[in-house]
Amino acid sequence: MDGAPPPPSPAGLSAYVAVSQALGLALLAATGAWLGRYRGGVGWHSPLQLNAHPLCMVLAMVFLQGDALLVCVFRHEAKRSKALHGLLHGLALLMALVGIIAVFESHRAKGIPDMYSLHSWCGMATFVLYLLQWFLGCGFFLFPGASFSLRGWYKPHHIFFGITLFILSITSCLLGITEMLLFKISDSYSHFVPEGILANTLGVLLVAFGLVVGYVLTREEWRRPPLAEELALSMDFKTLTEGESPGGGSQ
Amino acid sequence: MDGAPPPPSPAGLSAYVAVSQALGLALLAATGAWLGRYRGGVGWHSPLQLNAHPLCMVLAMVFLQGDALLVCVFRHEAKRSKALHGLLHGLALLMALVGIIAVFESHRAKGIPDMYSLHSWCGMATFVLYLLQWFLGCGFFLFPGASFSLRGWYKPHHIFFGITLFILSITSCLLGITEMLLFKISDSYSHFVPEGILANTLGVLLVAFGLVVGYVLTREEWRRPPLAEELALSMDFKTLTEGESPGGGSQ
Repeated sequence: MDGAPPPPSPAGLSAYVAVSQALGLALLAATGAWLGRYRGGVGWHSPLQLNAHPLCMVLAMVFLQGDALLVCVFRHEAKRSKALHGLLHGLALLMALVGIIAVFESHRAKGIPDMYSLHSWCGMATFVLYLLQWFLGCGFFLFPGASFSLRGWYKPHHIFFGITLFILSITSCLLGITEMLLFKISDSYSHFVPEGILANTLGVLLVAFGLVVGYVLTREEWRRPPLAEELALSMDFKTLTEGESPGGGSQ
Repeated sequence: MDGAPPPPSPAGLSAYVAVSQALGLALLAATGAWLGRYRGGVGWHSPLQLNAHPLCMVLAMVFLQGDALLVCVFRHEAKRSKALHGLLHGLALLMALVGIIAVFESHRAKGIPDMYSLHSWCGMATFVLYLLQWFLGCGFFLFPGASFSLRGWYKPHHIFFGITLFILSITSCLLGITEMLLFKISDSYSHFVPEGILANTLGVLLVAFGLVVGYVLTREEWRRPPLAEELALSMDFKTLTEGESPGGGSQ
């Protein structure tokens, strides 16, 4: 069944995905330019360790997470689509973990308290829920234990919380940008200095990336139709439940 | 046709809407408590005019806008639903305008430059797009000039950008909270002072309100089925287009 050719992608979808990737690369470049040109670059076990935090979080929780969601709209075979979705989310999780370690170690080295700001509250809540979503996603879809009816119940929740966590990740990044600017250039920010304009532009790029990815994911006509193997599964499920319902006592 | 009883609301919807309203009232109370207890209250043509900005924006662009979106899921007759949707958005627009005037006048009085921060960029972009969405919504759905096919094409875009603008509004509020805290209590914020915890909690309430409203709006089974008058219109439209298509030259 895996050998069946996937249905063609709808017209226009590729153009929107291309725009999203251009925005994604632009926002990574803007992050690099900001940290490299104005914040001294990125380091580890040095005063520059804090800068590893925004770099890792933007790359992991925005770019990689966004692409992991986009994969679901493309017309691959189910197995390849699932594998790529899991791989990108796995990479995002690891890189986000490095980013979180960077900020905690950097705070400890400088004697700065943790978890007092709205950015840290939103960011940590997003990461913990992302971890939970990751484990639930693996539990329901990767391991063979979950029943078809459980998977069917969970799937729309997985999609809703997947998009929600992506939005929350972008929001946390915007809060982090504002926090960093007000810590570092509070005196000159209001004079439209280049660093402020660059970091604000990074914020706008993050919003634009989220907007395009969100549009692609939620456009009704672009939803991926059920694949051959999913249809076969749902037929099996229908047969099973219809077979069970007259007895009705086994559940 | 207006006299026909609306279909019943699905089970569970009312509970979620009740939770959203409790969260909405809680976030308004938290905003009032923050401004009243820690920021000296709200005024006009006084040093307290700046505080009118967060009060108006949270009330208008989060609470009223969120409720204007929720109205669309409820099972009213089409005319009542449309009127309430328009009324709440109209109130939100007016109140947001007052909030924007408050911040510009307050900046002018204190000699603070406008529009340099990421909060101001996101907030102003959100308001301008909200205004555009408002005019487009009126143009397509309120005035009788738009054809049924144009309305059918625009509706999913109106819904997507409606939810997007609601999310952007919440994001802008979170950026505003972070900005205000770092301007006012940057020295004590990291010591977990009550004002910081209260304002962070307001941020969490804003996210929770957005989450519940977003869940209600996007849950597949809770989508409002087409109303009798909408079905009649689409039947008319079908008859019209099927009647027109053989000729085909009139457009």
